[in-house]
Amino acid sequence: MCGIIGIVGTTEVASALYDGLTVLQHRGQDAAGIATVDGARLRLHKGNGLVRDVFNQASMARLRGRIGIGHCRYPTAGSEGAEEAQPFYVNSPYGIAFAHNGNLVNTEALRKEMFEGDRRHINTDSDSEVLLNVLAHELQIQERMALTPDHIFKAVAGVHARARGGYACIALVLGYGLLAFRDPNGIRPLVLGERITAEGREYAVASESVALDVLGFKRLRDVAPGEAVFITDDGQLHSRHCAESATHAPCIFEYVYLARPDSMIENVSVYKARLRMGQKLAEKILRERPDHGIDAVIPIPDTARTAASALAEALGVPFREGFVKNRYVGRTFIMPGQGDRVKSVRRKLNPVELEFRKKNVLLVDDSIVRGTTSKQIIQMARDAGAKNVFFASAAPPVRYPNVYGIDMPSATELVAAGKTETEVQQMLGADWLIYQDLKDLVWAVQDGNESLKHFDSSCFNGEYITGLDRHYLEQIEMLRSDDAKAARRSA
Amino acid sequence: MCGIIGIVGTTEVASALYDGLTVLQHRGQDAAGIATVDGARLRLHKGNGLVRDVFNQASMARLRGRIGIGHCRYPTAGSEGAEEAQPFYVNSPYGIAFAHNGNLVNTEALRKEMFEGDRRHINTDSDSEVLLNVLAHELQIQERMALTPDHIFKAVAGVHARARGGYACIALVLGYGLLAFRDPNGIRPLVLGERITAEGREYAVASESVALDVLGFKRLRDVAPGEAVFITDDGQLHSRHCAESATHAPCIFEYVYLARPDSMIENVSVYKARLRMGQKLAEKILRERPDHGIDAVIPIPDTARTAASALAEALGVPFREGFVKNRYVGRTFIMPGQGDRVKSVRRKLNPVELEFRKKNVLLVDDSIVRGTTSKQIIQMARDAGAKNVFFASAAPPVRYPNVYGIDMPSATELVAAGKTETEVQQMLGADWLIYQDLKDLVWAVQDGNESLKHFDSSCFNGEYITGLDRHYLEQIEMLRSDDAKAARRSA
Amino acid sequence: MCGIIGIVGTTEVASALYDGLTVLQHRGQDAAGIATVDGARLRLHKGNGLVRDVFNQASMARLRGRIGIGHCRYPTAGSEGAEEAQPFYVNSPYGIAFAHNGNLVNTEALRKEMFEGDRRHINTDSDSEVLLNVLAHELQIQERMALTPDHIFKAVAGVHARARGGYACIALVLGYGLLAFRDPNGIRPLVLGERITAEGREYAVASESVALDVLGFKRLRDVAPGEAVFITDDGQLHSRHCAESATHAPCIFEYVYLARPDSMIENVSVYKARLRMGQKLAEKILRERPDHGIDAVIPIPDTARTAASALAEALGVPFREGFVKNRYVGRTFIMPGQGDRVKSVRRKLNPVELEFRKKNVLLVDDSIVRGTTSKQIIQMARDAGAKNVFFASAAPPVRYPNVYGIDMPSATELVAAGKTETEVQQMLGADWLIYQDLKDLVWAVQDGNESLKHFDSSCFNGEYITGLDRHYLEQIEMLRSDDAKAARRSA
Amino acid sequence: MCGIIGIVGTTEVASALYDGLTVLQHRGQDAAGIATVDGARLRLHKGNGLVRDVFNQASMARLRGRIGIGHCRYPTAGSEGAEEAQPFYVNSPYGIAFAHNGNLVNTEALRKEMFEGDRRHINTDSDSEVLLNVLAHELQIQERMALTPDHIFKAVAGVHARARGGYACIALVLGYGLLAFRDPNGIRPLVLGERITAEGREYAVASESVALDVLGFKRLRDVAPGEAVFITDDGQLHSRHCAESATHAPCIFEYVYLARPDSMIENVSVYKARLRMGQKLAEKILRERPDHGIDAVIPIPDTARTAASALAEALGVPFREGFVKNRYVGRTFIMPGQGDRVKSVRRKLNPVELEFRKKNVLLVDDSIVRGTTSKQIIQMARDAGAKNVFFASAAPPVRYPNVYGIDMPSATELVAAGKTETEVQQMLGADWLIYQDLKDLVWAVQDGNESLKHFDSSCFNGEYITGLDRHYLEQIEMLRSDDAKAARRSA
Repeated sequence: MCGIIGIVGTTEVASALYDGLTVLQHRGQDAAGIATVDGARLRLHKGNGLVRDVFNQASMARLRGRIGIGHCRYPTAGSEGAEEAQPFYVNSPYGIAFAHNGNLVNTEALRKEMFEGDRRHINTDSDSEVLLNVLAHELQIQERMALTPDHIFKAVAGVHARARGGYACIALVLGYGLLAFRDPNGIRPLVLGERITAEGREYAVASESVALDVLGFKRLRDVAPGEAVFITDDGQLHSRHCAESATHAPCIFEYVYLARPDSMIENVSVYKARLRMGQKLAEKILRERPDHGIDAVIPIPDTARTAASALAEALGVPFREGFVKNRYVGRTFIMPGQGDRVKSVRRKLNPVELEFRKKNVLLVDDSIVRGTTSKQIIQMARDAGAKNVFFASAAPPVRYPNVYGIDMPSATELVAAGKTETEVQQMLGADWLIYQDLKDLVWAVQDGNESLKHFDSSCFNGEYITGLDRHYLEQIEMLRSDDAKAARRSA
Repeated sequence: MCGIIGIVGTTEVASALYDGLTVLQHRGQDAAGIATVDGARLRLHKGNGLVRDVFNQASMARLRGRIGIGHCRYPTAGSEGAEEAQPFYVNSPYGIAFAHNGNLVNTEALRKEMFEGDRRHINTDSDSEVLLNVLAHELQIQERMALTPDHIFKAVAGVHARARGGYACIALVLGYGLLAFRDPNGIRPLVLGERITAEGREYAVASESVALDVLGFKRLRDVAPGEAVFITDDGQLHSRHCAESATHAPCIFEYVYLARPDSMIENVSVYKARLRMGQKLAEKILRERPDHGIDAVIPIPDTARTAASALAEALGVPFREGFVKNRYVGRTFIMPGQGDRVKSVRRKLNPVELEFRKKNVLLVDDSIVRGTTSKQIIQMARDAGAKNVFFASAAPPVRYPNVYGIDMPSATELVAAGKTETEVQQMLGADWLIYQDLKDLVWAVQDGNESLKHFDSSCFNGEYITGLDRHYLEQIEMLRSDDAKAARRSA
Repeated sequence: MCGIIGIVGTTEVASALYDGLTVLQHRGQDAAGIATVDGARLRLHKGNGLVRDVFNQASMARLRGRIGIGHCRYPTAGSEGAEEAQPFYVNSPYGIAFAHNGNLVNTEALRKEMFEGDRRHINTDSDSEVLLNVLAHELQIQERMALTPDHIFKAVAGVHARARGGYACIALVLGYGLLAFRDPNGIRPLVLGERITAEGREYAVASESVALDVLGFKRLRDVAPGEAVFITDDGQLHSRHCAESATHAPCIFEYVYLARPDSMIENVSVYKARLRMGQKLAEKILRERPDHGIDAVIPIPDTARTAASALAEALGVPFREGFVKNRYVGRTFIMPGQGDRVKSVRRKLNPVELEFRKKNVLLVDDSIVRGTTSKQIIQMARDAGAKNVFFASAAPPVRYPNVYGIDMPSATELVAAGKTETEVQQMLGADWLIYQDLKDLVWAVQDGNESLKHFDSSCFNGEYITGLDRHYLEQIEMLRSDDAKAARRSA
Repeated sequence: MCGIIGIVGTTEVASALYDGLTVLQHRGQDAAGIATVDGARLRLHKGNGLVRDVFNQASMARLRGRIGIGHCRYPTAGSEGAEEAQPFYVNSPYGIAFAHNGNLVNTEALRKEMFEGDRRHINTDSDSEVLLNVLAHELQIQERMALTPDHIFKAVAGVHARARGGYACIALVLGYGLLAFRDPNGIRPLVLGERITAEGREYAVASESVALDVLGFKRLRDVAPGEAVFITDDGQLHSRHCAESATHAPCIFEYVYLARPDSMIENVSVYKARLRMGQKLAEKILRERPDHGIDAVIPIPDTARTAASALAEALGVPFREGFVKNRYVGRTFIMPGQGDRVKSVRRKLNPVELEFRKKNVLLVDDSIVRGTTSKQIIQMARDAGAKNVFFASAAPPVRYPNVYGIDMPSATELVAAGKTETEVQQMLGADWLIYQDLKDLVWAVQDGNESLKHFDSSCFNGEYITGLDRHYLEQIEMLRSDDAKAARRSA
């Protein structure tokens, strides 16, 4: 998971990119970077950590220029390293800086092609660096020294022809302008906005509309699947569909968990979609247990709060904030000779005991992935004196890995993989476990924009819109397991 | 505003103090410190910044010992400096480390007494350093070389006889144990807990019960007004009332805003008290405008969410999270040649536009202090398309400064000081402004513990339980105004 | 001025590169960097500051591999920036890391060629980045995918054909090996060594032999002017002369000032050369003033000590360390309201007064560049009570800028530019000023290796062996003046 | 070993203290600190590391005031910790900041007295903190609230009566002024200077006169043994002899090794004293081996250079800088899987091989302590091709520990302890080892000031001027051994 943003402005843009990254940071808190065009020079600063820790006055002051891009990263498979913060840069041809949200499913084949066909060395495990070099290569084979938007769109078409996966990308081409494009299935989001200032018109592209809102840009539209948008250094906007027509299938997990509630994605309000998820869950509960006896609906903060409040409203049951989230969780220190430590969930969530004592509570979370946290939370509710602990998930069972850029563990670590709902209920220790049905989840989103006919719901149903190579899932199984991560980190 | 914690344990305590400070950090994010007793040696580490930034593996490793105290600070008048992080330490007599939440109203007189009577130099503007030296002096005049709990309680009685104000204090007396005490009116909170481990019984004291919960300590009771608790190095608990009897008057602002909702203070659940504040507000609204026409109740996150949800429930109006808080706000960078910046409130809150468009919305906040933020938020609601913007405050008008340890501006900067509610409504630009009545606020807290007869409500009614010297309010007017703070910071 | 080192080893090389850089750091204390080959991956760490500050345990641990290069930098014209630390890296073709000591005189033309001919963007003002891209381009036009040493030497020949100036370079070509080469005139030094370990033979190249000594490598020979040395990943050494034959003209300033005394350059001991400089100065003094009346010879530490001790010996006059150098000079802090500060020379040098009082002293420095320091030192000697202050320079008058990589101010800032020796003597306030004759300086070096027939002595005689474009000196006049530097730094 | 400095100025003093500490830093590079008097407030900043690393613009800006003291520390027994940087501070009575160079031999007894008699807690192992508390106690028992110089001198007399050892101290007494005093035997140095500025007269005291020189202060005189100097806040100088008369016995090791050559101590030029040491050594060599056959005299840089040059001159043998010191030695990094590392001496010193090959060389060092370095250096000379390696020490054999503040290992780690010179010669592997005779060393210093009749030469002859308790040497044997230090550091 990553957040990206790019601006072609009329005055200095670094502080706007910084502010934009802070509102996109829920998409990736692991690393951040900004690149700007300062005359003939690219300025680049990036590093591991939160946006506020990566940048300081000195580094911001060096990021001169009125055109720039920013990136924040959540580590996906194989990219925990410090060198892999984005934007990436290659100096040939032209000088290109590149920021990417998504994941490719044919990275290894492309990496090999790049070296054998163009002797381009890829120095990280990041598929973003591969994608940048594919773009660089496709630009290199265009006509020399006089790039037009037409050449650039041809290069993007070349990228689409070779890359498979979910990707939203923003690039600076030095001396030309800012390029943004989105995969042919439109899996990952990308939105375009404009702002009229005294100095003239400015454009911005970003992963989520909330970044536009906060910067005072008006949302114009989503970048279309397979479309490329090119804004020249002097502020002219060009766009073209650069891919064969393909099924439009936005990632449904953006609505469930990833996106901020105040974002509009594909003209659907994420907040409204979550309210509808709560409403649909309530209908299912009333259908399955008309005499549910629930005394209070309690969300697991923060994401589930929206769905839970709609659910409570529809059930006619009090909505209670039974868990308080600790905003300041720090690292865990182990002292010499010390016994067992406070459980990690306990350091993040604290129950308001009076809300549980002798009650039948319905806990609501946005989704259940590994199940380890849910299990501990259910136990906390029991320890606080709950009579019965019911648990609802606003999303269906997560049974398959995500390969398009959502950070999720390998299949063997998903609690619901290969299990019935009853088996999961037993593993979690809930008195009743209710999952959203996939068709209801789809409806909850679709109701905001009826033109959306398909979604990438692969982690629920195992259907991968781009197709996958035979052994791909086995490979990521190896890469993403916790053991594999631990090994890489200690290396 | 500050948070304090102390533990007499059976094994190393530094990491527990660290975890405890992270859950108390809403009381003060400006500086943090921990002191531990390592054999005959005091270990102390403190600094400006968040708990997670002040401590690292190396500094934690030096904080050896099974007895220790911690402090986190929000700057009150005159204590912005880096040297003024707590705990403070004096080496004579015995070696004493000291952490304090509260504020004295006779600091200057005590400072003078301390120097003239005992040649004790106070090196900061902090009243905590003054209070520590009063305690040190009172211990010094006890019998030499053989401190008993009796001597210690006599010393605390000496402190109570001299100090006036609100204060909850925790101190380490090297070679003896951990001392905790609370002002005779019990203005500032302090709670005692215990934990039975395989190695034996452990005690903890903290500003809020939530710190006990998270560390697995059982809440025993609040430390009583004027009471001192002394836990010897070998874990024996002693306690005594050390002050003349006085009116018990806990700070009501803890319930309104400062404390975490999952804390119990004076046996009252803060969460429940806030629900009751919402309920009382609803009654007032229905009383004053039965045909209010409100389409949605929208909290200003995070504190007001509890009262707002109860209010919505009681009104029978949908509760909607119309504002999304940005969790990652960083510092503001000004770039050369740049025009106007994003407004600061806009960087912290973003409206979900669909929840405002063409609606009559009731915004709910916990209280209104300066009014500047409320004014901007009301404007944001209008810009998002609201038809009418109503604004409710879960607390009455704040018209007087707080002198007992709540960070609040000087009277001239309080929007409601000297104004009618109608005048404030006009200043904020609301279509209707509803304040909680003080008697309703008192009821909302009292309903949880009927033995509470009085509260410090001085910022609402100007009645100061300790009495104030004639010119005291004028002095803090000078110290606390924004101009004064700016001057000190640049000094 | 820069120091470079490269090693093809049999085990991990990062710590050896680190140690090597610390002994080359007199060549450049401004920035440092190391790149290593870790399997298919390039590891790179660099930054501004001393070697000991740039690297820590974590950054060293990431520099895995048995092949690597290192660089330390003194800022030459236009390269003060933090981004311009070396090694530089381009990913196309193959992945090349590059470290360079020297300066080109046709940088601007090459930069233009690179972009127009190959669309290679150069993102800094550094001529090193230009040179790397010339090399990358020349490698790119070799046969694809199967580089042999022959292709590599052809690429170096291509570099020699295009670059003009003084340059010693070390590069890593990923998947192939380590390449080192030196400009056709052999202006900048580069020496080759080997070490036999239990695991096999290892090779190293470095700016000065002292780096080989300290690491236990045996000096084999200097890399010849125009020669390239290529050591394959598996440790095979290849070498070839890649340039048209040209006058061998090593930089004579290396012997005067830049190199460490314990280095051998072109088979000449720098220490011995400096002794001979002192001896020749003594002969000139005895020739010009047989009754010189000198009571003590006093060096300006550290470089001049060698020449001064030989001079004293030859004159038969006591050698006295009249100035003590402060090893720990820190930055200068200006406090508010403070009057005049200690003079900067006084913070670096302190006179031993007894060595000056009522004596005729001969101060000896290696050379006189701006003259400001010399003037202050002469005044310090007078203040300490010297009767007469004579001043000797082991080098002739510096009258012309250096364009081959020695950091030196622009011509207008050279005290001797356009002045007679008498005029300089007056400006410095010396009672007598004695300069070495250029022929004596040449002899002092040549006497160690009679095969050396020419030297780059351009800063003494204005003869530039590579030729210069018409306006080149005017350009660097603009770039190098103190005002220009100050402007860039504040930018 | 430590350096101390104090200034009572007419304008801001922090930057002068900083500059002074940089020229005293050869006395202690381990930690540094500055305290200033800013009105009624003490400002203090200290930390581990070099002066340039401990202070930055922000910390310097806080050190306001025209009166202040500074300290730099080399760790002596038991004081490696970070908390033990000086100045130390106690707030009772008055507020006292304290900086100390030296070592007490009755620390443990004083520590006990302090606690039992005055309940003063000492929180470190540092004897400086003990000494500060003795001073604080002696001030506390003076008349209250109206300190005169007379009271202060009585307090110092009380300190002299209780403390035994070598100590030079500088203290700030808040509200009164700056106090400096020296132990009754005058073991550790302390010098007084003045400077007349436009704003009036200023005084400074410092460990060495070089700090006065660099700041433009005129050296007035050494503070006398047992004397105290008190400079009031308004710049009035008072002084008094505060101790019973005692043998004046300055530490002779200051002249051998510790002090800078450009310092005057007890009116003796350190530089001249070292020249005389060389001269005396030459006489001994000529006496013992008239046909010594020495081809070159080679100093071990830096301290021995002065004695060696005089020795060479007196022998009539060439003086050659055969070893070059690496100024930039960094830390040692161990890479995984790496074999043996460059020897540590080799990283610090590099031989100029031509100066050794086939020659009889006389290496000269200031003294021989552990002997491990000397042994490696002798081997380096042999490896460089020397025919015979002679070794001279400008000081006699070091056979006993120093207990007055010179950092030196325990007796069992001294190569000469309990050994004849012949045995040491064999251990070092020298062809001939020549030690200075103690009477010659004494003469070399005494010749500069005939009034000096005694010296502390205890590390050469085992005679401790203050007397020692029976088990004292055994205790420090335990504290100072390398094993003991390693254990403390890992603790």
